[in-house]
Amino acid sequence: MEKIINLAKNRGFIFPDSEIYGGWANSWDFGPLGVELKNNIKQAWWKRFVQGRLDMVGLETAIIMNPKVWEASGHVDEFTDPLVECKKCHRRSRADELEKGNMCPDCGEKDSLTVPANFNLLFKTFVGPKENDAAVAYLRPETAQGMFVDWPAVLASTRKRLPFGIAQIGKAFRNEITPGNYVFRTREFEQMEIEYFIEPTNWETEFDKWLNEMRNWLTYCGIDSKLVHEVEVAEEDRAFYSKRTVDIELDWPFGQKELYGLAYRGDWDLSMHAKQSGREMNYADTKTGQKFIPHVIEPTFGVERTVLAMLLSAYREEDVRGEKRVVLGLPAWAAPYQVAVLPLSSKPELIEKSRRLAESLTQNNHCDFDTTQSIGKRYRRQDEIGTPFCVTVDFDSLEDHAVTIRDRDTMQQERVVMTRVEGVLRERLKNKGGLK
Amino acid sequence: MEKIINLAKNRGFIFPDSEIYGGWANSWDFGPLGVELKNNIKQAWWKRFVQGRLDMVGLETAIIMNPKVWEASGHVDEFTDPLVECKKCHRRSRADELEKGNMCPDCGEKDSLTVPANFNLLFKTFVGPKENDAAVAYLRPETAQGMFVDWPAVLASTRKRLPFGIAQIGKAFRNEITPGNYVFRTREFEQMEIEYFIEPTNWETEFDKWLNEMRNWLTYCGIDSKLVHEVEVAEEDRAFYSKRTVDIELDWPFGQKELYGLAYRGDWDLSMHAKQSGREMNYADTKTGQKFIPHVIEPTFGVERTVLAMLLSAYREEDVRGEKRVVLGLPAWAAPYQVAVLPLSSKPELIEKSRRLAESLTQNNHCDFDTTQSIGKRYRRQDEIGTPFCVTVDFDSLEDHAVTIRDRDTMQQERVVMTRVEGVLRERLKNKGGLK
Repeated sequence: MEKIINLAKNRGFIFPDSEIYGGWANSWDFGPLGVELKNNIKQAWWKRFVQGRLDMVGLETAIIMNPKVWEASGHVDEFTDPLVECKKCHRRSRADELEKGNMCPDCGEKDSLTVPANFNLLFKTFVGPKENDAAVAYLRPETAQGMFVDWPAVLASTRKRLPFGIAQIGKAFRNEITPGNYVFRTREFEQMEIEYFIEPTNWETEFDKWLNEMRNWLTYCGIDSKLVHEVEVAEEDRAFYSKRTVDIELDWPFGQKELYGLAYRGDWDLSMHAKQSGREMNYADTKTGQKFIPHVIEPTFGVERTVLAMLLSAYREEDVRGEKRVVLGLPAWAAPYQVAVLPLSSKPELIEKSRRLAESLTQNNHCDFDTTQSIGKRYRRQDEIGTPFCVTVDFDSLEDHAVTIRDRDTMQQERVVMTRVEGVLRERLKNKGGLK
Repeated sequence: MEKIINLAKNRGFIFPDSEIYGGWANSWDFGPLGVELKNNIKQAWWKRFVQGRLDMVGLETAIIMNPKVWEASGHVDEFTDPLVECKKCHRRSRADELEKGNMCPDCGEKDSLTVPANFNLLFKTFVGPKENDAAVAYLRPETAQGMFVDWPAVLASTRKRLPFGIAQIGKAFRNEITPGNYVFRTREFEQMEIEYFIEPTNWETEFDKWLNEMRNWLTYCGIDSKLVHEVEVAEEDRAFYSKRTVDIELDWPFGQKELYGLAYRGDWDLSMHAKQSGREMNYADTKTGQKFIPHVIEPTFGVERTVLAMLLSAYREEDVRGEKRVVLGLPAWAAPYQVAVLPLSSKPELIEKSRRLAESLTQNNHCDFDTTQSIGKRYRRQDEIGTPFCVTVDFDSLEDHAVTIRDRDTMQQERVVMTRVEGVLRERLKNKGGLK
């Protein structure tokens, strides 16, 4: 984990937020490489689960919605964690995460913890010029409610028939008592969520289909299946309206914890909003004319957890003739750069020829252009950031108009004429984890 | 404007936020088509200004940063609008937007307005369990400061040389006194911003280059250049550190107002953060060894304003044999769907053949599949949402395995064998406003 954190910081994947001002509790920024990886994940997910399917549509609802949404959903009253504070060191903890015994996990003091109080995780703000109760609004703690609230508008405008789903990618905010474990739990995070609307009788089949879709996605992301555990949530731990919930957990360096979730939510959400808003949330079957509230399967994916799981799965160290080589074996579609162009020396003719090649390649595949330090160091740097292929322009290139393509994983090199580079790369990239 | 608002709502581009709960003051959601249009704009911008250039990198900083950032930048003290309230009707207004004379713009009462008070536009929240001053944090009012604060980390990790830029796309929040004009001014909005770092002596050339880049982007978006005005901001209206600022304004239905902005900000931001944080923000020239704080050119683009400008530019009504035809002539790269597959009837063999074609096409171009209502109505619907091409599968298709491709703009139809559809579409799409 320390290795990942250092690599991510030094190479520009993930920086501590507001670092020049001393940082900011468990908040992280995505650097030049991290934002590309994150965007690639979001775009691949969207392509796979929205654009690539005829039974899915996308949506983007506001982060600050009408507060009535969160009153109706129960978040204002019930979205709480049990908070205890140590009377001695004043460190706050989640009562449900403590070991047995009334002992402070931080200073070790016995019988020092306060009685648990319910602490609401909603971030509060004030809309308009007055800071009073009437002006209170909340930052959404999940993207899901937006999809339920807009269900009638989506249904009316798209005229989709069951089964079909709505997907949303976006930020959510939770005022966590104990954020931590790097980007695993942060107060600000991004979700990729699906609400899949079905006829009630089909829920078991549809649930299994989505479980399988999630497994395939994990494979596509290159996440080691040996580290993944599907945990059936027991009846007493499920929400009362859910007949089945599966937590998809991962062996993180800090223990087995949740990566994704899949829940069958029945008609709970739409029925609740129908009741609270007084608006109809029914679906009318075109054949039978029967009206009913659809049931919902909800697959949820965390973006930052996907990033972290992929970094952990992709990281490897090799011994190459007595030297350590660090490789980030990301699938080609996810790598921040698909290719890097490296002129062998800083001779102006080489730089010029290389730059033109890089500018041309980057129109189709994101291309890095690195002219500093020795070629060996530059290869190692590209290995560390997961670039599948390096293209080296050397002195012979000025004569034979050919370049060397080097494979990240095999380190094998191949001489290719420049006019063929783009085509060769396209083929090779397809075989390195597939395309987006 | 009313026509755009209605079309956008009925067809699924833009919905009023939290509509089932009575809406939410000037807040809007992006529906299934709107989110595709918005994503296409953001991705095309990123491709053009980040991935397509060797002198640019991306970044994604947190929405809730350390509040010291906003104290240092002056937002906590000075990011205000002058607020007045009518003593009679209690309507609030921005003093700087009122006509001369102390008359309420709402109820018309004379001498009814309070003395202007400075109202801070930062949205405030509380991090951690206590709602006190020590826990106050802010939602970012712009993406720009994140790029300045992370400048040292970006420089160290990428080793880029001047001139180079950092780009960020993301949400920003301003507690506007008078949001309005549909998605033109909302409290929650999305920015696409660039901070381009240069040597001080080159600022005029670099400024002109970026002005030209912004013009080219507008053309690419299909925004009518006759509606665009480049307004040189006079010295007395510019920030004191800016030697040149150009507002790119548009003739909106509600008047000529800002679309984008381009500002030369000198070394103001980096110097200010260096001073306030005590951290070095210098750049070291590799040749001369000289250290200095780079100067900055800042092109800013609003995402929702781009969406609205494109919808307004693309909308047209035609008379086709006495009937009104509404067309959204979006560039092909921006349209929510690039193609729609329409089976002529709901006969099962046609539906099946069409579905297979649609499922195949949507792997490369986002494809709609519509089986309801008459073929004429479905063509009109696709015209209204800007789909460049419709593919109709008819009874002959079952025999000759050919389909009809219909062009949105010319309405011309052409018979093409199914195996060639994908290739023909690829060529035609290139000629309809270019590719992403």
